[in-house]
Amino acid sequence: MALDLNSDLGEGFGPWTMGDDAAMLDIVTSANIACGGHAGDPSIMRKTCAAAVERGVRIGAHVGYRDLAGFGRRAIAVAPAELRDEVLYQIGGLDGFARAEGDRVRYVKPHGALYHAAARDRKVADAVLAAVAEYDPELALLGPAGTELEHAAGHIGVRFIGEGFADRGYTPSGGLADRGTTGAILHTNEAVAQAVSIAMSGTARTVGGSGEVTVRATSICVHGDTPEAVEMARLIRETLDEVGVVVAPFS
Amino acid sequence: MALDLNSDLGEGFGPWTMGDDAAMLDIVTSANIACGGHAGDPSIMRKTCAAAVERGVRIGAHVGYRDLAGFGRRAIAVAPAELRDEVLYQIGGLDGFARAEGDRVRYVKPHGALYHAAARDRKVADAVLAAVAEYDPELALLGPAGTELEHAAGHIGVRFIGEGFADRGYTPSGGLADRGTTGAILHTNEAVAQAVSIAMSGTARTVGGSGEVTVRATSICVHGDTPEAVEMARLIRETLDEVGVVVAPFS
Amino acid sequence: MALDLNSDLGEGFGPWTMGDDAAMLDIVTSANIACGGHAGDPSIMRKTCAAAVERGVRIGAHVGYRDLAGFGRRAIAVAPAELRDEVLYQIGGLDGFARAEGDRVRYVKPHGALYHAAARDRKVADAVLAAVAEYDPELALLGPAGTELEHAAGHIGVRFIGEGFADRGYTPSGGLADRGTTGAILHTNEAVAQAVSIAMSGTARTVGGSGEVTVRATSICVHGDTPEAVEMARLIRETLDEVGVVVAPFS
Amino acid sequence: MALDLNSDLGEGFGPWTMGDDAAMLDIVTSANIACGGHAGDPSIMRKTCAAAVERGVRIGAHVGYRDLAGFGRRAIAVAPAELRDEVLYQIGGLDGFARAEGDRVRYVKPHGALYHAAARDRKVADAVLAAVAEYDPELALLGPAGTELEHAAGHIGVRFIGEGFADRGYTPSGGLADRGTTGAILHTNEAVAQAVSIAMSGTARTVGGSGEVTVRATSICVHGDTPEAVEMARLIRETLDEVGVVVAPFS
Repeated sequence: MALDLNSDLGEGFGPWTMGDDAAMLDIVTSANIACGGHAGDPSIMRKTCAAAVERGVRIGAHVGYRDLAGFGRRAIAVAPAELRDEVLYQIGGLDGFARAEGDRVRYVKPHGALYHAAARDRKVADAVLAAVAEYDPELALLGPAGTELEHAAGHIGVRFIGEGFADRGYTPSGGLADRGTTGAILHTNEAVAQAVSIAMSGTARTVGGSGEVTVRATSICVHGDTPEAVEMARLIRETLDEVGVVVAPFS
Repeated sequence: MALDLNSDLGEGFGPWTMGDDAAMLDIVTSANIACGGHAGDPSIMRKTCAAAVERGVRIGAHVGYRDLAGFGRRAIAVAPAELRDEVLYQIGGLDGFARAEGDRVRYVKPHGALYHAAARDRKVADAVLAAVAEYDPELALLGPAGTELEHAAGHIGVRFIGEGFADRGYTPSGGLADRGTTGAILHTNEAVAQAVSIAMSGTARTVGGSGEVTVRATSICVHGDTPEAVEMARLIRETLDEVGVVVAPFS
Repeated sequence: MALDLNSDLGEGFGPWTMGDDAAMLDIVTSANIACGGHAGDPSIMRKTCAAAVERGVRIGAHVGYRDLAGFGRRAIAVAPAELRDEVLYQIGGLDGFARAEGDRVRYVKPHGALYHAAARDRKVADAVLAAVAEYDPELALLGPAGTELEHAAGHIGVRFIGEGFADRGYTPSGGLADRGTTGAILHTNEAVAQAVSIAMSGTARTVGGSGEVTVRATSICVHGDTPEAVEMARLIRETLDEVGVVVAPFS
Repeated sequence: MALDLNSDLGEGFGPWTMGDDAAMLDIVTSANIACGGHAGDPSIMRKTCAAAVERGVRIGAHVGYRDLAGFGRRAIAVAPAELRDEVLYQIGGLDGFARAEGDRVRYVKPHGALYHAAARDRKVADAVLAAVAEYDPELALLGPAGTELEHAAGHIGVRFIGEGFADRGYTPSGGLADRGTTGAILHTNEAVAQAVSIAMSGTARTVGGSGEVTVRATSICVHGDTPEAVEMARLIRETLDEVGVVVAPFS
């Protein structure tokens, strides 16, 4: 059994920082690096790529709506052709730094509101995948399994990597419970248990704990935006190691 | 005798347009395409790359300060390392579209205030050239001969392509006369004559007409921001053809 | 019978221009001036305010989503409190120039995707109106009658000015026909007739011409983004004068 | 003896924060609030204005170059008329929030590279002061005494408030020692002593400690960007209270 751990990194901008990238790069195997749309500027991209390469962490392009003020968390009704171009620009921009630092972009993950829109809306998913396939058909697409993102990837022939969440409650339909609802955010022990469950049995308990749902994930997303989040990510990594799950980049 | 003709293209943004790109692409052999710094957005970059590829016009990255409001015409005291990263990002972003449309970025030309700063200040020139060499050492650098840009290119081993201007008056030192001064802007007939002179003898008459100055240029920049400018560019192209100068991409 | 004519002005940005503001300012009585959200920069705001004051044209704040790349035409899921703040910032920014040039902002009109969202969605409308009332309860709100914008204005006690369109086809429900559909865009003669009809009888013929619909409008929006649009606006103004409709700022 | 304490606040943007504004608002008497140029977005402006009003802290507009990526720390060659308009826009934008929260903008302080450029270059200073006087001649200008900013304020008739620094070393000419040089940054005890000295005798010891220089300051700038900086600011405030300096807004 093997599992990839990914995290959103390089999410500062100009003078502003976010999260503890250095700590997270010691924990994860894949780095979703912001590309200047929702966060990230050229110098932050370079530094984050360099730090990832130094630790052998795989580089992914974390593409988002062009909306720094909203951090890519606000849905924007971008026409599909423009969205495709925006995504292509962001991948190309990041890839320059990945290559300058000795590696290259290996996968693409949509961020925030784009992640949710692409999971739900095939036109949005197709626009993202068109950019991925156009830039490099060998790139993988990281996202939630069973959604329009997976369908769009399959349609255009891009390898799809299913992603699970350690610290978010799942509904019976396999989606994430809304943040406001009870059980939507898991505490450390529960999150560690959920990560192990997803890794070893491909399942998670549903919110409330009464049932079980399939979670097809070869990568689990962990967060580093607070000291507690970093600690949780570290504990997930250690526990996976202990129970014999090989934490390694997806192949 | 051969000469390249280049022009600044793709300089719209969002709903705004600038110049007649289609007309200019029928005249020039090299297209300096804005990369999102001083102008250009992803969809404009794609369209301009596509139109260039369709006509066999060579694609160059027209890199500038990140300053849409100022159109890259205002000097900004960007630290060299940040400037290098900014330039690398812009080249990478454009190259994605050039490749998606079947070609790739072949050269880099700094725009506006960055052009002038890099010509004059070796640190700025080195920052631009570092990005060029890092992205692809096969790229050429297009700029004014005899300046820090040429020195920096020589130092790092990037091919340098000297650029002349048809419609700007030259001073005895080989620089351009300030826009405000008499003779700084040439009218159509003078501009055509100057283009021919640069192409055939590598010289231009100095402002006022009394002397002659060497202009090492294998490419001449023509503009398309007004109907008159397009007409002048067309006449320059036709006259060069008539006098036997082969207008072709620099090799 | 009196009617106000309004137009969207000051919609350039940096080096880019849009429409013929000078011509439109000789035709209209109210200027919806972009405030830096979807278009407009500080110097353009000042120049447009100065030109409006010079001709006695009333100044309105044309507020939009913060999205220059999309020109405010893309719906953005901005949280109501943030939208209220964005609108307040834009009104305040423009009012500085209006006052510096000797007048002040007299009304607010939402632009593009915000116009449509606010007409349809009470939460969006309330956010816009909250900003208007907070900035100055004497401001008017210009928008489509019978919509959530009018309800929200009435609720908070802001004067509402109904707006009609000369060159857009109306549906039987009083809304605008979708741009793609037959009859959605009226030609010059039809537009002139519709302006007269709205001014004199408060009605417009519905798309297809079979019926009639009430259009409560004390202001009609005319466009200036092409030479043809300017010509149409001029003809509307002249015809209204001829048929005895007093074209004057709403009171 | 009375002294004003000012601090740079509201310097977040979108999801990003900077410094501990709440702590600083309990210490200072004047808040320099970012206006969206170098930092700050509408919702941050509102929250910072509300928090200042709640504590009776005076609101100032902290105006800067439009350069979020560079945080206003990079000199930009903005033409004077455009700079004036940019400053006016920022003052107007912030004033809307100050008024919505029950107060209004009382003074203007240039930020970062604009602060230094305006101190040194009369044209830049005149552009800033033109905006200040145009917006409201009752506004004060906060900046370094004896510089072009003071001259420009005097010329146009705007009240000038001299500003000193507690934690920066002064040169014999009354300027600040360059950050890189020995003694340029004072430690807590020295900074406290310097604040007291500026308040009580209008002097500071020069870098190296051998001499003394006049510092005309009715306001002292303290920083809050790190926990240590907040602690230093608190100690300065307490010490001033102890030695009998009345810490109060400048009148």
